[in-house]
Amino acid sequence: MRHYRTELWFETKQRRQLINITGQVQEVLRESGIQEGLLLCNAMHITASVFINDDEASLHSDFEEWLEKLAPEKPYDRYRHNGFEDNADAHLKRTIMGREVVIAVTQGKLDLGTWEQIFYGEFDGKRRKRVLVKIIGE
Amino acid sequence: MRHYRTELWFETKQRRQLINITGQVQEVLRESGIQEGLLLCNAMHITASVFINDDEASLHSDFEEWLEKLAPEKPYDRYRHNGFEDNADAHLKRTIMGREVVIAVTQGKLDLGTWEQIFYGEFDGKRRKRVLVKIIGE
Amino acid sequence: MRHYRTELWFETKQRRQLINITGQVQEVLRESGIQEGLLLCNAMHITASVFINDDEASLHSDFEEWLEKLAPEKPYDRYRHNGFEDNADAHLKRTIMGREVVIAVTQGKLDLGTWEQIFYGEFDGKRRKRVLVKIIGE
Repeated sequence: MRHYRTELWFETKQRRQLINITGQVQEVLRESGIQEGLLLCNAMHITASVFINDDEASLHSDFEEWLEKLAPEKPYDRYRHNGFEDNADAHLKRTIMGREVVIAVTQGKLDLGTWEQIFYGEFDGKRRKRVLVKIIGE
Repeated sequence: MRHYRTELWFETKQRRQLINITGQVQEVLRESGIQEGLLLCNAMHITASVFINDDEASLHSDFEEWLEKLAPEKPYDRYRHNGFEDNADAHLKRTIMGREVVIAVTQGKLDLGTWEQIFYGEFDGKRRKRVLVKIIGE
Repeated sequence: MRHYRTELWFETKQRRQLINITGQVQEVLRESGIQEGLLLCNAMHITASVFINDDEASLHSDFEEWLEKLAPEKPYDRYRHNGFEDNADAHLKRTIMGREVVIAVTQGKLDLGTWEQIFYGEFDGKRRKRVLVKIIGE
């Protein structure tokens, strides 16, 4: 069995931002040389997400509006967690979007459907945060 | 390490439909001959889900009602994504339900709890769509 | 390839309770002797969750309040599932929180970010329920 591990780092300019990381994850897979296996890609922070969806700008603004309705950022004092912090909403938003994706590796490629793109979902940004990619296989 | 890959195809009659695919996934595992490992089962479309829950008809109608409340289909123009398309709600519903499940394979069987059943969750159907099953192990 | 499997059992005193199981999962990994691979940790019940978030009590009460708003326990007759049962809300809450986590194993350790902690999320407790840990690797 072979294994490979790397981290991807991000520092967003906005509090909330969605970044298409499909190309970076493909590059990590290429570096690994693994042809068949499973690839795990997860946020290493509990206020961020790695998820798969469509790379379509108006859908992303629908996501923003929808998440703000399900788990509003403000008023900050609506959450007990927000004493020294102001990011309780980010913990909830990330819960909806998910921590991780597991992707099949087939013939050295990410085995994705036509429109599947991998995103880093930042919900409490403006600081350096990281994503783990771990691949096992042969 | 052994690996096995197949696709399952679905074409639902309704826009939204939940299909129990546990038997089909078990059959794929049997074909693979893998005894110990991990099985990934994911929707290859971004408006569909693979998830695990109970095979109980009234629970499924509760899911339908609940998802319609959290991410209503209509009016279509409530979502920016719905210019040429009308399926923004399906992207959101699938996000709640999840893209994928990872299941342990133990002694050649899906290592599931008593009531765990695997479902294909279609949220924008009436066309051919597919699910990936990838198994690695020995 | 090596593999290892065990179950963790829980019986909560409350209907809903979040239990930090990071130490127990680390102990399972140590027992397995696996140095590099992937670890799956999933609820074997469809009214419970395994998820990763922060071990912070006020955040946990925010989760409780938020889940009760998105999928209220009562009145029981708001859900069709609640004929002989009263736990439809638990199926929905667990869907939001997720069934499983997949964690990288690197140099014999759980490869987690600084604040990542693993939780068992019980939403229909007061009875014995279990979590599966399956590790594959080398």
